[in-house]
Amino acid sequence: MLTAIALNCTLTPSPAASSTEKLATEMLDALAEHGVTGTQLRVVDYNVTPGVEKDMGEGDDWPGIREKVLAADILVFVTPTWAGQMSSVARSVIERLDAELSEQDAAGRPILFNHVAIVGVVGNEDGAHGIVAHAFQALNDYGFTIPAQGATYWNGEAMHTTDYKDLDETPEAVASATSTAAQNAAHLAALLKERPYPA
Amino acid sequence: MLTAIALNCTLTPSPAASSTEKLATEMLDALAEHGVTGTQLRVVDYNVTPGVEKDMGEGDDWPGIREKVLAADILVFVTPTWAGQMSSVARSVIERLDAELSEQDAAGRPILFNHVAIVGVVGNEDGAHGIVAHAFQALNDYGFTIPAQGATYWNGEAMHTTDYKDLDETPEAVASATSTAAQNAAHLAALLKERPYPA
Amino acid sequence: MLTAIALNCTLTPSPAASSTEKLATEMLDALAEHGVTGTQLRVVDYNVTPGVEKDMGEGDDWPGIREKVLAADILVFVTPTWAGQMSSVARSVIERLDAELSEQDAAGRPILFNHVAIVGVVGNEDGAHGIVAHAFQALNDYGFTIPAQGATYWNGEAMHTTDYKDLDETPEAVASATSTAAQNAAHLAALLKERPYPA
Amino acid sequence: MLTAIALNCTLTPSPAASSTEKLATEMLDALAEHGVTGTQLRVVDYNVTPGVEKDMGEGDDWPGIREKVLAADILVFVTPTWAGQMSSVARSVIERLDAELSEQDAAGRPILFNHVAIVGVVGNEDGAHGIVAHAFQALNDYGFTIPAQGATYWNGEAMHTTDYKDLDETPEAVASATSTAAQNAAHLAALLKERPYPA
Repeated sequence: MLTAIALNCTLTPSPAASSTEKLATEMLDALAEHGVTGTQLRVVDYNVTPGVEKDMGEGDDWPGIREKVLAADILVFVTPTWAGQMSSVARSVIERLDAELSEQDAAGRPILFNHVAIVGVVGNEDGAHGIVAHAFQALNDYGFTIPAQGATYWNGEAMHTTDYKDLDETPEAVASATSTAAQNAAHLAALLKERPYPA
Repeated sequence: MLTAIALNCTLTPSPAASSTEKLATEMLDALAEHGVTGTQLRVVDYNVTPGVEKDMGEGDDWPGIREKVLAADILVFVTPTWAGQMSSVARSVIERLDAELSEQDAAGRPILFNHVAIVGVVGNEDGAHGIVAHAFQALNDYGFTIPAQGATYWNGEAMHTTDYKDLDETPEAVASATSTAAQNAAHLAALLKERPYPA
Repeated sequence: MLTAIALNCTLTPSPAASSTEKLATEMLDALAEHGVTGTQLRVVDYNVTPGVEKDMGEGDDWPGIREKVLAADILVFVTPTWAGQMSSVARSVIERLDAELSEQDAAGRPILFNHVAIVGVVGNEDGAHGIVAHAFQALNDYGFTIPAQGATYWNGEAMHTTDYKDLDETPEAVASATSTAAQNAAHLAALLKERPYPA
Repeated sequence: MLTAIALNCTLTPSPAASSTEKLATEMLDALAEHGVTGTQLRVVDYNVTPGVEKDMGEGDDWPGIREKVLAADILVFVTPTWAGQMSSVARSVIERLDAELSEQDAAGRPILFNHVAIVGVVGNEDGAHGIVAHAFQALNDYGFTIPAQGATYWNGEAMHTTDYKDLDETPEAVASATSTAAQNAAHLAALLKERPYPA
């Protein structure tokens, strides 16, 4: 049984509605169609201390989130778009994962090898390609494998202001991209679980 | 009298229609309202030899383009979006301008100091913010000054395929961004012509 | 008299030493040589609430920082490099400045017009160009003007781990870039103070 | 038997020495240790017509390069750094691969599914992280899978001018990154050859 953890990197605390949550939910639903059990976590609801250690000490909620990331086969990294870039919350997740570069699994491999990551981006307007690029680079550097067409996104026309959560229905192209990313993530995670990278 | 040169970095040679040309024309028109005389050049119609020298030798058309850039007070850098990034033609313009880092004006300043640059980006879909970012960084490093809100762009909704040249009319938000960039470029170019950076 | 505010976007709270602080201090010192009075603020020492409003309510320290940014002629935006990208703290500053897109000055201009921004980046290794690009794009979109060669940076060779604060002396190329950015920022801020963009 | 094609995206035509060639050669050598047979091609030696079709007609050398990319299990994408960004030649490769979004394999999958890509970047100084990001995003969007830690790079300290080809020896950290990327690419390509993504 494969598992996924979706990190929703919206700036908006619960229980307010979140376009990022909507896309994250759709990504988890698409993974479920391939037998992947997933949970979602809104990072801004937690106290993620600024830093690059796996545990920044008292009051730091990251260690609990970290456990969930390490336990899941697939990371679903979902961020809103601000000024065309990923959110500060998304950046803080990337910073905290930096600590994993020093961690190894039981076989002596970087601890995030054999984990798969896919990325989702939502925004009123332009920015998704650049955000996907920077998310892929950082996550891959930490050890995540990126499946074919491992991203999905939505944004409106240039300088528009509609929110994804307010669309009447999910555009077919977005649903298709979400479905492909999920299918490929599930396939790749299963392969790597069965036949991991060499130590 | 201020002057501008618009470099249209489309991949499509003349005389085919070009969305990039449409935006470049609108940017020059907006500059004309502030008394700036401009011309446009479709770079792909010329042979710009790969390299980073100001003259790559026989068959290289860049030296002629270079003269126009150096003669103009304002560079209007306009590129299409492919895979969310600027065109290879736009990249080759940036590469050839790298040579100016070694050139000085009569007062001993970097030769592109006191030149102003604005950027335009068109695409079917997402990519503009990232492209503006990388264009600003490179052009500013070479010496161009970037006026307030010095970019304009259009792209459709995520994964859409409409071309800017096929829109019935220019969206008001785009026209407004173009107008602001042009106004501020003209103001700043006039200031720097009268009172250039110190040597 | 021109003024500057340097926002140090390190992840490390005071009073720990900070490479970002070292570079920010050097940038303010270089501005001082042109008669600019500056102060520095370590953003992580404050509670900047996630969000994109100018005041996120109780417990939000951003309004005080915002006043300093609006009062200064020059913003000195300085960030460390993590995973090749700007810090989450730097991203949160950019997010909070997003609110200024809706604010106007007494003449009806975007409130950040006639403000100048320069950028500093430090890191053990690679990432500065991309960070400068994204900082320029966001700050310029909000209304800041970017002077010629308006960035300075230091990073070590690929995959090295030395900190800027531990260098025996500031490399000459870095000192020169810092000096140029400061000189040009001071010149441009003086011009725009005397002859602001048209309303 | 797995195969690889390395596209060297230097701006410098043969037979001149090329830092990019040096890194590409090292990447192919590392793949050879895992039984992967590779060849290298210096793209600037060919006439790659600007455009986004798989064949731009008379005089276009891309179709021959395209055949090699489609025939290889692993793409080794290697670019120099100019102004902190990938070369125009690298961009033109990405543009030409855009056509593959419309192509399918015999099973009806996007034609580049089950192909693996790794990236190499060389430069005198800063830029590699941003280049890796943008290469990953575009190549992954076209269908390439990115293995864990699928990039290697070298650049000198900020604003330095040494070339990779002039180093006395390959730095150990670079050799290690190259080795890891190659090992993981070979592992993943073998898995996907045996058990491809579902149609």
